Amino acid sequence: MTHSPEQWRALATQLRADSIRCTTAAGSGHPTSSMSAADLMAVLLADHLHYDFNDPHNLRNDRLIFSKGHAAPLLYAMFKAAGAITDEELMSLRKFGSRLEGHPVPLLPYVDVATGSLGQGLPAAVGIAFSAKYLDKLPLKVWVLLGDSEMAEGSNYEALQIGSHYQLNNIIAILDMNRLGQRGPTMLQWHGEVYAERVRAFGWHAILVDGHDVEAIHRAYSEAESADRPTMIIAKTLKGAGVSFLADKEGWHGRALPAADAERALAELGNPKGDIRVQVQSHRPGEPAPLGEPKPFQPPQYEIGSLVATREAYGDALRALGVAKPQVVALDGEVGNSTFSEKFMKAYPERFFEVYIAEQQLVSAAVGLQVMKKVPFASTFAAFFTRAYDQIRMAAISRANINLVGSHAGVSIGEDGPSQMGLEDLAMMRAICGSTVLYPSCAVTAAHLTAQMATRAGINYMRTTREKTPVIYGPNESFPIGGCKVLRASANDVACVIGAGITLHEALKAYEILKAEGLSVRVIDLYSVKPIDATTLRQAAAECQNRIVVAEDHWPQGGLGDAVLDVFSAPDVSCPKMKRLAVTEMPGSGKPQELLDAAGISAPFIAEAVRSLMR
Amino acid sequence: MTHSPEQWRALATQLRADSIRCTTAAGSGHPTSSMSAADLMAVLLADHLHYDFNDPHNLRNDRLIFSKGHAAPLLYAMFKAAGAITDEELMSLRKFGSRLEGHPVPLLPYVDVATGSLGQGLPAAVGIAFSAKYLDKLPLKVWVLLGDSEMAEGSNYEALQIGSHYQLNNIIAILDMNRLGQRGPTMLQWHGEVYAERVRAFGWHAILVDGHDVEAIHRAYSEAESADRPTMIIAKTLKGAGVSFLADKEGWHGRALPAADAERALAELGNPKGDIRVQVQSHRPGEPAPLGEPKPFQPPQYEIGSLVATREAYGDALRALGVAKPQVVALDGEVGNSTFSEKFMKAYPERFFEVYIAEQQLVSAAVGLQVMKKVPFASTFAAFFTRAYDQIRMAAISRANINLVGSHAGVSIGEDGPSQMGLEDLAMMRAICGSTVLYPSCAVTAAHLTAQMATRAGINYMRTTREKTPVIYGPNESFPIGGCKVLRASANDVACVIGAGITLHEALKAYEILKAEGLSVRVIDLYSVKPIDATTLRQAAAECQNRIVVAEDHWPQGGLGDAVLDVFSAPDVSCPKMKRLAVTEMPGSGKPQELLDAAGISAPFIAEAVRSLMR
Repeated sequence: MTHSPEQWRALATQLRADSIRCTTAAGSGHPTSSMSAADLMAVLLADHLHYDFNDPHNLRNDRLIFSKGHAAPLLYAMFKAAGAITDEELMSLRKFGSRLEGHPVPLLPYVDVATGSLGQGLPAAVGIAFSAKYLDKLPLKVWVLLGDSEMAEGSNYEALQIGSHYQLNNIIAILDMNRLGQRGPTMLQWHGEVYAERVRAFGWHAILVDGHDVEAIHRAYSEAESADRPTMIIAKTLKGAGVSFLADKEGWHGRALPAADAERALAELGNPKGDIRVQVQSHRPGEPAPLGEPKPFQPPQYEIGSLVATREAYGDALRALGVAKPQVVALDGEVGNSTFSEKFMKAYPERFFEVYIAEQQLVSAAVGLQVMKKVPFASTFAAFFTRAYDQIRMAAISRANINLVGSHAGVSIGEDGPSQMGLEDLAMMRAICGSTVLYPSCAVTAAHLTAQMATRAGINYMRTTREKTPVIYGPNESFPIGGCKVLRASANDVACVIGAGITLHEALKAYEILKAEGLSVRVIDLYSVKPIDATTLRQAAAECQNRIVVAEDHWPQGGLGDAVLDVFSAPDVSCPKMKRLAVTEMPGSGKPQELLDAAGISAPFIAEAVRSLMR
Repeated sequence: MTHSPEQWRALATQLRADSIRCTTAAGSGHPTSSMSAADLMAVLLADHLHYDFNDPHNLRNDRLIFSKGHAAPLLYAMFKAAGAITDEELMSLRKFGSRLEGHPVPLLPYVDVATGSLGQGLPAAVGIAFSAKYLDKLPLKVWVLLGDSEMAEGSNYEALQIGSHYQLNNIIAILDMNRLGQRGPTMLQWHGEVYAERVRAFGWHAILVDGHDVEAIHRAYSEAESADRPTMIIAKTLKGAGVSFLADKEGWHGRALPAADAERALAELGNPKGDIRVQVQSHRPGEPAPLGEPKPFQPPQYEIGSLVATREAYGDALRALGVAKPQVVALDGEVGNSTFSEKFMKAYPERFFEVYIAEQQLVSAAVGLQVMKKVPFASTFAAFFTRAYDQIRMAAISRANINLVGSHAGVSIGEDGPSQMGLEDLAMMRAICGSTVLYPSCAVTAAHLTAQMATRAGINYMRTTREKTPVIYGPNESFPIGGCKVLRASANDVACVIGAGITLHEALKAYEILKAEGLSVRVIDLYSVKPIDATTLRQAAAECQNRIVVAEDHWPQGGLGDAVLDVFSAPDVSCPKMKRLAVTEMPGSGKPQELLDAAGISAPFIAEAVRSLMR
């Protein structure tokens, strides 16, 4: 049942008025960026969105992402018009404790992903569309409202190319081309034909439309809903549309109207009552395709002492998880033969998404997939996750549950040189709110941790090693997240050596060196970097004459050393003598062992650090 | 003087043979990715590149960037053919201590920017082209060799749009479309017309060419050199071209040939002697436009106690630097009215580059500008530098000297919510090799630090605050990098409180609270986070009953607290009782003070932390 143009316009007027009212009440916000898209959103809400506001997490719902998150007032005004929030809550915008933050976050159940850092809505939509089209086989649409300024972000072009490569005709992007950015005109201003040309070159359907002509908007949406490829509707709009002294005027970006101006503006809008309530259509027909039955996880088996790279164990475990958990999906940045995600790909091609060398899209697609209740594992080199740090940060604000696995950590990768070495990944990932950071030293550990990631909430990161390393643990060992393993211990340990990944193996060699000198040291495998096993570490310090050596294949900042140090920073804890070994100079190429030696993080340096602490 | 097609082909054969020889000697590397582009590079080196190998840093040289850094063997083979390195050095590829790393780095003076993380060559070229076209007014060309896999990186599209927006017809990109990525075919394989369509949609000139037809390549280069817009030459090539068992074969990516295969391959190439030496044309005519005379820096003046945001002081200082140092250029990610770089823009529009909302391009352009001996300052919100972490990491490998200034740090920005809050920037920037991390609490400090950044090598980062804060220091104060300021001290301090930025002001308030209770504390302004003033901090701990409180508007990982803790981690240093206040839960919207209180980093919490340490 279609509403009339008059009804659309009346709704749009209410959305504009509400955007003004709530931002003026807040004293900040983006009313004019909301007003430009009000007609677009009125028609969408009234006649094209299929969404059950009483059951927002139903898989069958359409999805609506405000990639231009600063237009949050408009989004909240839509929620009010749909009856999902009250006018009173709308007026709590930006106030302390309100779910209606300055930019949308999933504290509101109608928001699937946090936005506010630009250029992230479309890439997240790709992940949702992957799930809907290829896994759930549901006819839902993913609607994405984009600002024109954010078309400068490269991440959008990653989404455009993947969108056409995977024929994601369930994505309908709406470009609110209002010509004005934060500080002045955008690069392309109202040259909609240039946007259209670009979008078409990426294999998308493009529709140019007057973003204030509700009937044309309606036709465009209908056309997009039946398109055989993803669509971008390029809507020419006026920033601040609907109010003469705001429309297409510079200087109003991100400014709430002072009370007197708001009054004038509302009067010009006809002082709408604000009581229009839209009955949004329920979700489109169809049931999600069944995923299959979960089975017990059968971890891959490795013989103690055999040489297996932890990156390969990740691949083995991921493949095993594929059997155990039908919700598990994997993605890779075109290095699946290095990260070993290809083991999963070969076993479950239908649950694997090759994202090519587009790491921003890689992480955003994972965020989108978890919106659709999948358990995504995304892998690339540890170094290249730096490319997506903003996406990872925003994933935390999205309260997303995603698993990231970075291979080729540290100088131990050898000849490829520093561009390929993950040396800041621990720092980066530890500084993500609520993150889990894991760093196995052994294939058995890597496999067990992979399995645990699949059921753990939040942003989970595992760092893997390129080189093959000896298997340390037997099949019945357990590796609780937040724990560590004491591998060597005696009653007369003179120091405690803490390592993880490649440096744990160096620590074990250092143990032998020192043992030959008659010194025994405790050796700890710190496979869980965050959370960290403070109890065991404090106990170890106390039992090892308060001497600790930490060795890590990472810069000194933000890695293992800082994590350990933090354990002893509490005021009621006594503080050990500590020696920290880390990579302090820019490495070059060379053999792994040469580079470990050059960085001073190999066994002889660890042994010497112990001796120096004893002097 | 043009060489003959036979000469080009002979040179290309040598480049192929050398690429095979050096990688086989190394036992690793990317011969086939080098061979696909050998004809392209032979014609370039012999007849189009203008470059004085005896004076590689001469501004007037063309620039050549291997964005596909893994084709480094080809690049080094070119350097050998140009007489810049010996065959002996070529054969040192990837060996420990060699300048010829697995991916190019500027330890070789002919390499301007490190590559190896894909999609960074073209954005760096934009910075070089900015300088050549708009500042130096030199006719040089920036040649960029791109792989086809890396066209998946969004960063390239940021460069494409800025390239046409600024009409950078001095950029000539060469796309080595060899169809095969690391793990299999690329998305577009040999659909050169699709690349051409995309590139043209971004306003570039596109030329399709057979990448093994040397005469066609020569014509394409000539056409590109006289184009009125930036050009991309899309060259259809075979990976491993020139050797039958490698050409267009999967499974050879990143694999050196075993000795027997190498012998076969070299035989097929006719066992070239390897003695072809090319006399590369010297730089194109023209002198760099004069930059103007440096003048003494006149720092902006602020009255003690007046309210000035450090971000605004940055803008004031940058404008003042504009007078003092003609090499200073500024760039911004379309938020210059928030970062206050617009003060510079208004004063020196010809030295300001608006990069729009494309933070990867923002940082890469800065890297390119410093190649051309400019002193770039790039600014955006601290939070949005996370978008360019890979570029920042690579800038360090490039041994670049760039200045980054991130505004809107921490929860104290208030209503806009977490997407806009820089809360991991200190962690991220401290973990950059050789970086400097500054965090002024006062406009005077911000201005002085800005001036010092302009002459400091490496990756310099300054964090600024959105809120206005009281000016603390007088005009004659100095702020050496690596220092700190003791703002409150007495002989009977019961604890030392360390803050920076907004938390320093909270610390000063806490001082007053405690003073009223009869307790005196030392207060330290930690404006230099890295390097850090270990001496003063250790002394303060010793003089303040070994009690330290650190308060920071940042996650607990990697920020001020970790930096301070590290000072006390040396084995010969006694360790204070420490209480760390930081942001530990995801913040929302609210008033700045509400959010500081909610995070537990405001004055009452600092005062209570001091009291708790005394219990």
